[in-house]
Amino acid sequence: MKFYYANNSCALASHIALLEAGAEFEAHRLDFAQGQQRSDDYLKINPKGRVPALATARGVLTETPAILAYIAQTHPDQDLALMSDPFDYARVQSINSYLCSTVHVAHAHKQRGARWTDDPDAQAALTRHVPTTMRACFDLIEASMVQGPWVMGEHYTVCDPYLFTITRWLAGDQVDVADFPRVHRHMQRMQERPAVKQALALHN
Amino acid sequence: MKFYYANNSCALASHIALLEAGAEFEAHRLDFAQGQQRSDDYLKINPKGRVPALATARGVLTETPAILAYIAQTHPDQDLALMSDPFDYARVQSINSYLCSTVHVAHAHKQRGARWTDDPDAQAALTRHVPTTMRACFDLIEASMVQGPWVMGEHYTVCDPYLFTITRWLAGDQVDVADFPRVHRHMQRMQERPAVKQALALHN
Repeated sequence: MKFYYANNSCALASHIALLEAGAEFEAHRLDFAQGQQRSDDYLKINPKGRVPALATARGVLTETPAILAYIAQTHPDQDLALMSDPFDYARVQSINSYLCSTVHVAHAHKQRGARWTDDPDAQAALTRHVPTTMRACFDLIEASMVQGPWVMGEHYTVCDPYLFTITRWLAGDQVDVADFPRVHRHMQRMQERPAVKQALALHN
Repeated sequence: MKFYYANNSCALASHIALLEAGAEFEAHRLDFAQGQQRSDDYLKINPKGRVPALATARGVLTETPAILAYIAQTHPDQDLALMSDPFDYARVQSINSYLCSTVHVAHAHKQRGARWTDDPDAQAALTRHVPTTMRACFDLIEASMVQGPWVMGEHYTVCDPYLFTITRWLAGDQVDVADFPRVHRHMQRMQERPAVKQALALHN
């Protein structure tokens, strides 16, 4: 498999999961500063012009929650998505869907406002509001989404690298992770994992 | 199970899927015009103050892609998510994740701009841009996400009610569905299904 990522993008979550699962893959870094995600070559791989993308023998997969579930299902030894229990698995998917569609989207309004308006003043207004929305998201995450020690309790799942990836964005969004003790401890615990250290060395 | 929805919200997708699967459930309608999604009683069920929510014997599930996968996994007869094949299932999840995190989000900027800014001028700018973003989303959907006759080809999956639900929003977003022939035929095909007729009668 070929895995396409950009430094410190949301692709970090899938990158960590691939390493944790012991998947065989080649990592290909795109330089967003040079707009490589919009190059003709990359758009043939992923017409969305985004990362992550995972090129498999059967085709290219995109969207973090789908890639994470695919890694878990194709590397069943570690039971990374609790997939054999429909309710537990639905909780995993619900958390990943929330991270994708609400928290990542909230964060994206800081620098990617052009996705939703071409008015510079409106874009600036979106940027200003990001600390408020990110704080509200993490209030909910802290209250209801981190059982501890891992997101789903004793069992490490693909929710963990995804939450970790987005938690790392808080500082840049002017939110202090220390205001969310469970999330903060989760971030620290994640940083001790070998796969996380290995991925961070590639992303930093 | 108890299923919480609001008329013509994204909960329509899960509502159709529950009916298609032959699930046993009670449907509870919330009146968004009266702010019932923010009532103390409902926030105890779903602290997000949104729909859909599916209350099961083990707890409450939220987020459309997670609820759709749960319905499919717990009603395996119809193979509504192609879950036994990791690649096909990842495609299903990828499409549902895109609908949730990109297309629904694009649409939400019309009336829910207050989620991302408290500046009325910026909210108006977001509203103005919605036809542009929705058209771009449906260009991609038309080009790459509807194999026909159903989203995943010959096999009807939980992608179908989700795409149908969001396709119905196009008219209100000033986008003509007829500009997207595959999506348009998909919408017409969906309207012929008994479960869809039954759900629409409850939502309209």
